[in-house]
Amino acid sequence: MTHDYDRRLTAAGEQSRAAGIDALIVTPSADLQYLVGYEAPLLERLTALVAPKGARPVLIVPELERPRATASPAGDLVDISTWLDGEDPYRLVSSLVPEGGTYAVSDRMWASHLLRLGEALPGSSFVTTSVVLSPLRMRKERSEIDLLRTAAHSADQSLARVTAEGLEGRTEADVARSLTRHLTETGCDTALFWIVGSGPNGASPHHDPGSRKVQMGDVVVLDFGGRAGGYCSDLTRTVSVGEPSSEVKEVHEIVRQAQEAAFQAVEPGVPAQEVDRAARRVIDEAGYGKAFFHRTGHGIGLEEHELPYIVEGNRAALEQGMCFSIEPGIYLEGRFGVRIEDIVTVTGHGAERLNEAPHDLLVVG
Amino acid sequence: MTHDYDRRLTAAGEQSRAAGIDALIVTPSADLQYLVGYEAPLLERLTALVAPKGARPVLIVPELERPRATASPAGDLVDISTWLDGEDPYRLVSSLVPEGGTYAVSDRMWASHLLRLGEALPGSSFVTTSVVLSPLRMRKERSEIDLLRTAAHSADQSLARVTAEGLEGRTEADVARSLTRHLTETGCDTALFWIVGSGPNGASPHHDPGSRKVQMGDVVVLDFGGRAGGYCSDLTRTVSVGEPSSEVKEVHEIVRQAQEAAFQAVEPGVPAQEVDRAARRVIDEAGYGKAFFHRTGHGIGLEEHELPYIVEGNRAALEQGMCFSIEPGIYLEGRFGVRIEDIVTVTGHGAERLNEAPHDLLVVG
Repeated sequence: MTHDYDRRLTAAGEQSRAAGIDALIVTPSADLQYLVGYEAPLLERLTALVAPKGARPVLIVPELERPRATASPAGDLVDISTWLDGEDPYRLVSSLVPEGGTYAVSDRMWASHLLRLGEALPGSSFVTTSVVLSPLRMRKERSEIDLLRTAAHSADQSLARVTAEGLEGRTEADVARSLTRHLTETGCDTALFWIVGSGPNGASPHHDPGSRKVQMGDVVVLDFGGRAGGYCSDLTRTVSVGEPSSEVKEVHEIVRQAQEAAFQAVEPGVPAQEVDRAARRVIDEAGYGKAFFHRTGHGIGLEEHELPYIVEGNRAALEQGMCFSIEPGIYLEGRFGVRIEDIVTVTGHGAERLNEAPHDLLVVG
Repeated sequence: MTHDYDRRLTAAGEQSRAAGIDALIVTPSADLQYLVGYEAPLLERLTALVAPKGARPVLIVPELERPRATASPAGDLVDISTWLDGEDPYRLVSSLVPEGGTYAVSDRMWASHLLRLGEALPGSSFVTTSVVLSPLRMRKERSEIDLLRTAAHSADQSLARVTAEGLEGRTEADVARSLTRHLTETGCDTALFWIVGSGPNGASPHHDPGSRKVQMGDVVVLDFGGRAGGYCSDLTRTVSVGEPSSEVKEVHEIVRQAQEAAFQAVEPGVPAQEVDRAARRVIDEAGYGKAFFHRTGHGIGLEEHELPYIVEGNRAALEQGMCFSIEPGIYLEGRFGVRIEDIVTVTGHGAERLNEAPHDLLVVG
């Protein structure tokens, strides 16, 4: 799967000019992958794509990573300049950009690099690349949606496999290990994260799977994802181990309706916060408003969380090609939690789910 | 395995005072794990340990991660303060620290957080936590060395298993997958990185394993590691698939001698750069100086690369308890590469290797 990096670099240059940016300085991150297809080791030696206004971009890499950078798509797209251990790579950056300018740096650039760049570029000011690159990265190309779909299907299949195995008597950590294996066997290159919240642990939305054993009667939140061709999946389903109580059935049904209401609210032109409101309204009206204490969703792509955020206060209009999660939940402390999450993409007239796993409360052994 | 977090927090406070730091601001990173044992999700919502001079530290976490933070050692060590999606967590930080001060932020803090903190704290200046925490983190405690040894043994066993499988006819990516599985089956919680450089790819020190199939007659560089209880391993051995040529044997023997010379140079009080020089001298004298174009090693602990760096220019004296890699190499472009790497720890009078894998050129099928 190749992407049109030339088009992206050109568009980034245009966005930079429009935003008054003198140079982009992009360290290893989704931005770097997006612009030049280089997946660099995330280490302390500086790697940076430096794209000054109106000049050809240069990729600065440590000498020992020159072959790796050259073999990536970046090798055909930009000039590569290397530095040796013991040399100062920040001076190399400052030699390429105008003095005292405004530079856009990767959102995930390490502070150690940013502070050294600040010293090497006195009188300059820094903003994050999101002002330049988010408008591009938010609207996914067809090749990107295809990869998000591959990752989503892998998550769907992994859910089917792990529930078919049965959960009772297994530790959360063991279930998590199964999920990571299924992800890499069903289309993902790597597993990315794995939340297994059984019984009371399900009320902790970002629970770290541990030694608790799943028991008959537990509700279990499974929230996990992997990466395929660089693009992420993120699926949540809540299952019941054995027959659910009427309360569990009721709470699950409220979350299902909230998820559906949010999905139905998606169309081009709608402010992102309206999708959050649609989910929240259902849960509020059912009397569980305080038990839904996070936003409804987040964008997804080369990063597991990226713009747009589906949250109160985000008035930005949804556009065709945007991809994000819809994941309302209800969390009852000390008892159980329920969350249902799909990745959706905005179409010309509404939305499409990239996940196909059913929404019914699944009863497993 | 528990660590003495109270002692570490106290020592960090003393170091901060001595360095004129008004507050530590530590986002998810090895620093956060080191100080309070909290392994937080690395995402866009701000999590930060704020430790103002002379005041009790506060851990700021997103509301949805409160149960996870509370369940970690941090729950018993510091106050926890939460924020909800839509609120501004940077103001929460600024309410806890004196105005216009000097703050030490995690080396790996994201630029997106640092720039927002800069706005919330006008007139302040930032340095990285390494000035405060490196003197502590560099000198490993016994509990840390035990975990580094567990991770090192796992790497040793993974090497033995993958070479016993045989390499001929397998893709580099397939060999890499085996290594990741062996690491998690021999004591590591997760695999961390995996370099498999076969034939000419071995001359690329940070080669990304790909579709090239290992052939009879190849020299293969295997460089990989995992994490056990948070602590990293990093082992490199170079093997020959079938009988090696006399040139390969000669180059391997030079690298072996360089690695041994560097190891023999380690003792408390010796400047780090002397260890680099000891390895480089052997390779220079053998006429391969230009083919060894990276430093000799890096510190290791909660991070795969950390202080001290074993590099020309680092005059800092080695101290008992420091742990680092010794990994000279010779890279012959278009042909093959050889690297041998162990993790060593500085003892009262010299050094000890944490790895036990033999140094002889191993011939595999």
